[in-house]
Amino acid sequence: MPSYTPPLRDMQFVIHELLGAVDELKTIPAYADLDADTVNAVLEEGGKFASKVLAPLNLVGDAEGCVLDKTTHEVKTPTGFKDAYKQYVENGWSALSADPQWGGQGMPMLVNQAVYEMLNSANQAWTMYPGLSHGAHAALEAHGTDEQKKLYLPKLTSGEWTGTMCLTEPHCGTDLGLLRTKAVPQADGTYKITGAKIFISAGEHDMAENIVHLVLARLPDAPEGSKGISLFAVPKFNVNADGSLGSRNGIHCGGLEHKMGIHGNATCQMVLEDAVGTLVGKPHRGLPAMFVMMNGARLGVGNQSLGLTQVAYENAVNYAKDRVQMRALSGPKRPDLAADPIIVHPDVRKMLLTARAYAEGARALIYFVAVELDKAHNHPDEAVRKASDDTVALLTPIVKAFITDNAYIATTHCQQVYGGHGYIHEWGMEQFVRDARINMIYEGTNTVQSLDLLGRKVLGDGGAKLTAFGKTIARFVKANADNEALQEFTKPLSDLGQKVQAFTMEIGMKGMQNPDEVGAAAVDYLRVVGHLVFAYMFAQSAKIALEKQSDSDPFYKAKLTVARFYFAKLLPEVETAMITAKAGLKPLTELDEALF
Amino acid sequence: MPSYTPPLRDMQFVIHELLGAVDELKTIPAYADLDADTVNAVLEEGGKFASKVLAPLNLVGDAEGCVLDKTTHEVKTPTGFKDAYKQYVENGWSALSADPQWGGQGMPMLVNQAVYEMLNSANQAWTMYPGLSHGAHAALEAHGTDEQKKLYLPKLTSGEWTGTMCLTEPHCGTDLGLLRTKAVPQADGTYKITGAKIFISAGEHDMAENIVHLVLARLPDAPEGSKGISLFAVPKFNVNADGSLGSRNGIHCGGLEHKMGIHGNATCQMVLEDAVGTLVGKPHRGLPAMFVMMNGARLGVGNQSLGLTQVAYENAVNYAKDRVQMRALSGPKRPDLAADPIIVHPDVRKMLLTARAYAEGARALIYFVAVELDKAHNHPDEAVRKASDDTVALLTPIVKAFITDNAYIATTHCQQVYGGHGYIHEWGMEQFVRDARINMIYEGTNTVQSLDLLGRKVLGDGGAKLTAFGKTIARFVKANADNEALQEFTKPLSDLGQKVQAFTMEIGMKGMQNPDEVGAAAVDYLRVVGHLVFAYMFAQSAKIALEKQSDSDPFYKAKLTVARFYFAKLLPEVETAMITAKAGLKPLTELDEALF
Repeated sequence: MPSYTPPLRDMQFVIHELLGAVDELKTIPAYADLDADTVNAVLEEGGKFASKVLAPLNLVGDAEGCVLDKTTHEVKTPTGFKDAYKQYVENGWSALSADPQWGGQGMPMLVNQAVYEMLNSANQAWTMYPGLSHGAHAALEAHGTDEQKKLYLPKLTSGEWTGTMCLTEPHCGTDLGLLRTKAVPQADGTYKITGAKIFISAGEHDMAENIVHLVLARLPDAPEGSKGISLFAVPKFNVNADGSLGSRNGIHCGGLEHKMGIHGNATCQMVLEDAVGTLVGKPHRGLPAMFVMMNGARLGVGNQSLGLTQVAYENAVNYAKDRVQMRALSGPKRPDLAADPIIVHPDVRKMLLTARAYAEGARALIYFVAVELDKAHNHPDEAVRKASDDTVALLTPIVKAFITDNAYIATTHCQQVYGGHGYIHEWGMEQFVRDARINMIYEGTNTVQSLDLLGRKVLGDGGAKLTAFGKTIARFVKANADNEALQEFTKPLSDLGQKVQAFTMEIGMKGMQNPDEVGAAAVDYLRVVGHLVFAYMFAQSAKIALEKQSDSDPFYKAKLTVARFYFAKLLPEVETAMITAKAGLKPLTELDEALF
Repeated sequence: MPSYTPPLRDMQFVIHELLGAVDELKTIPAYADLDADTVNAVLEEGGKFASKVLAPLNLVGDAEGCVLDKTTHEVKTPTGFKDAYKQYVENGWSALSADPQWGGQGMPMLVNQAVYEMLNSANQAWTMYPGLSHGAHAALEAHGTDEQKKLYLPKLTSGEWTGTMCLTEPHCGTDLGLLRTKAVPQADGTYKITGAKIFISAGEHDMAENIVHLVLARLPDAPEGSKGISLFAVPKFNVNADGSLGSRNGIHCGGLEHKMGIHGNATCQMVLEDAVGTLVGKPHRGLPAMFVMMNGARLGVGNQSLGLTQVAYENAVNYAKDRVQMRALSGPKRPDLAADPIIVHPDVRKMLLTARAYAEGARALIYFVAVELDKAHNHPDEAVRKASDDTVALLTPIVKAFITDNAYIATTHCQQVYGGHGYIHEWGMEQFVRDARINMIYEGTNTVQSLDLLGRKVLGDGGAKLTAFGKTIARFVKANADNEALQEFTKPLSDLGQKVQAFTMEIGMKGMQNPDEVGAAAVDYLRVVGHLVFAYMFAQSAKIALEKQSDSDPFYKAKLTVARFYFAKLLPEVETAMITAKAGLKPLTELDEALF
């Protein structure tokens, strides 16, 4: 069975040394009392819960999956899942970064993201149950009425209830404008909602006493397409005015999907038959309200893949140190053994280092975005809020797509380190790959992310957000112009920054001639910009590591080495990606549809 | 459920137009009577068996898996597998390319490979049952005594019995020198063999009346390491001198592995307790004898991945034409529908074309190697045999590793085309990915293949085999120097050929300083040489397509377009691979083992 040791040292490095996050967040009144010791203590406790309670349930959750009772429509989660959730709620993890007015502990989102990294490493399928609640919470907090907030937020905060996002229907996922679920207004101000939803993660389960579904549906007078969609709160059990549970609502699980991975999470077909719901936000304005959930979810998906990359790395390292097989090409390294541990082989090291670099890069980026998110939501200075909001908007598709693509590569590599054993369930490595695979698909496929990045976030504002981020990088490079030792990092970073500028311009020009050129270049473009962002993270880490490296604490030496590996072996992907992006649309459209 | 339509037209294009295989094979006495119509008829019938009998069993085989009765040690294969095998044997498929002296039909291996492509597309797990027999057959034919041949080859040829390769033990896979299974000589000339083997594909099943295990074991006086391993034939049921079945032998299945994919194939832990076997080949010379099987198996694994790439492509195309979602960025293409079919989106086309190009390239390469294999075995001219043998040796690791890596990319892309539905079992796409994953691991991991290519096949003979192949490419380029229209293909092909020469030299020089440099570069090197070989195949296809393109038969136009796509969007991978290979060993060894 795989093991998991929370990478507390690297998490603390990113939070305290790379981002100086506590000092930065303390400038926000809501976090004025934050201190590093508290953050560290939370991470340590979160790590214990993840590694001791959740990790042991991961393999069994995959093997058992969820079971639907077709008579009662109730779903039984795998052995141990319910108990673990009880502990999670009792220990207050659900409330960690929620607003104190709803019973939350008011910690920054950064801390919540760091805890979620560990939960995801330990058990992605389990973590989706509480994870989905955050989206429902955020949507209600941003767009709910006072009554909805009072009714739902305290219970979602405590974790007594969980939440879902009910978007997809059998005939539409990406294109929500096509959705058909209907909401009919009632005399009492509620709505009766009827339709069928699919792919509803945590849509039904036995871990909480109620589930608050946030459902997209159409009002009778709705215009066609995406501008005629409204958002509704539809609880599994109707909620009385005093907050107590009332009758069973007309929403139930009609079937569970048999999936490639995340077997421990119930992916439900939800049937709505005159389910009673209340409107969240304005009529026909459901999509913008839903995007509050969706953007959070996209960052969350990136974090799932960070978690999987880290845990796959740890286990593959243990295996590579333990498994002896063949001698090093350069001669025996452990003549005392029958063969050398496979970690002596350069390609085994390359696979391990790929996973490690992708984990470290993802951690730096996700935590950085979390701090920006805290600033975007809570900073007193509007200009800061706006700038941070722009940064989050620009980086969200990169967190989602770049990190999840990397994690698929990384978990596949870590599985490969195990040879044939990597293909066998009991070792746990193949599960990481299967679980990682969904992250490239849900909450907007990675192709959709790339269109969001290039079409909307970059070209949509004439490159303003990208230019602003580019200036941040340029400032870092300039500020370190005299740092000789850092040039091995700042030089390629600066070069790539300039290339990205020209590259963006070129694609933008072609896109003005034919918008499909944007679609042809977008996936490659996201890989390039993703690497630019990672290179910036690694260059900053390397700067600190160069300053602090010492023989007595090898942490910084390792940090530096991983950064060097990244620049030498992973960053060069941009060369091919720029060539194939520039090859443009023509090679993709020359073949008539009939000839496919 | 996924569908499968055998790509007969492209198979025939490769065999008849690209390779001119029938004319070439007819120069070999054993195939003097070969004619194109017969080949085409065999392919058509094979395609019917694959698509009508095997393909419908693929999804159910995955869902059911195999079941071991722990009392009888018998394995029950999934519903329909046994019946399908009965048809396979009755229709003579098992005997297709076997020697007529053992009851075979004496067709070239090329035809067998083409039929296997279709079987693999339809059902990789099922196809492994007869597929493994070919290795046992080949090893016995090459190294068996007359008595062994007489006893085993007719039954293996007819398919009444199947065969296995019993190599791996729990503590050793790649490093067979470590193996511990013991063989003790008996007075009657047989051996009693005791030990434990794992990962034995088709090790036990209910499809044939006997199973001939080829087992690696050590004699009591064996030297340590890989030079002390012998090969034995160990039947499940002892075989009487008259060929009838005798008593149950001391070899049984002790457990089945729970795997990521190929659930329909029984991956067995085999327990040998004084199992009676006979020596195959010379004492202590088991590894060379085993490599007869292994090389065939490696080509077979490449073919498995060709099959998966093709079937995944076909289904993803159907889905992409059928599924409507969003409008093209350049404006509606199907205003009559609620949205455009997703095949209008450039990245969907890119994912589909990637799979198609990888399938077409793999087909050309595998069929080309099959013809070379036929020549290497059966050509009357020793010089031709030697040259073909060299070509096969050089290309075997490329067929195994390049094609299986490509298939993982391609099946993952095809799954992605389905969005969320790609993650659901019933659509079948996620199974293709899971099945494809093993191909990168078994019969020598892809890292091992890359070391075989660079270390043994290329640097091992001072580049002779590579140079010979490079000259073939150079001749093609030169012969077409006046073909203006072909320059878009021959120019980059020729450039890459020259780059590979310099690239090989550079790595070879570094490898002389430190052999670990070879290990650091090998995986990237294989990607580069794999693309060189594919580029050569596509350039030759493009030449024919340019000559024959016409409006009335769009096949050649499509062929040309796919070749252009390959050169524009896939071949550029070599740029990054050469950079990262040249970055060398240092970034991989700087990190102390303790700091991983």
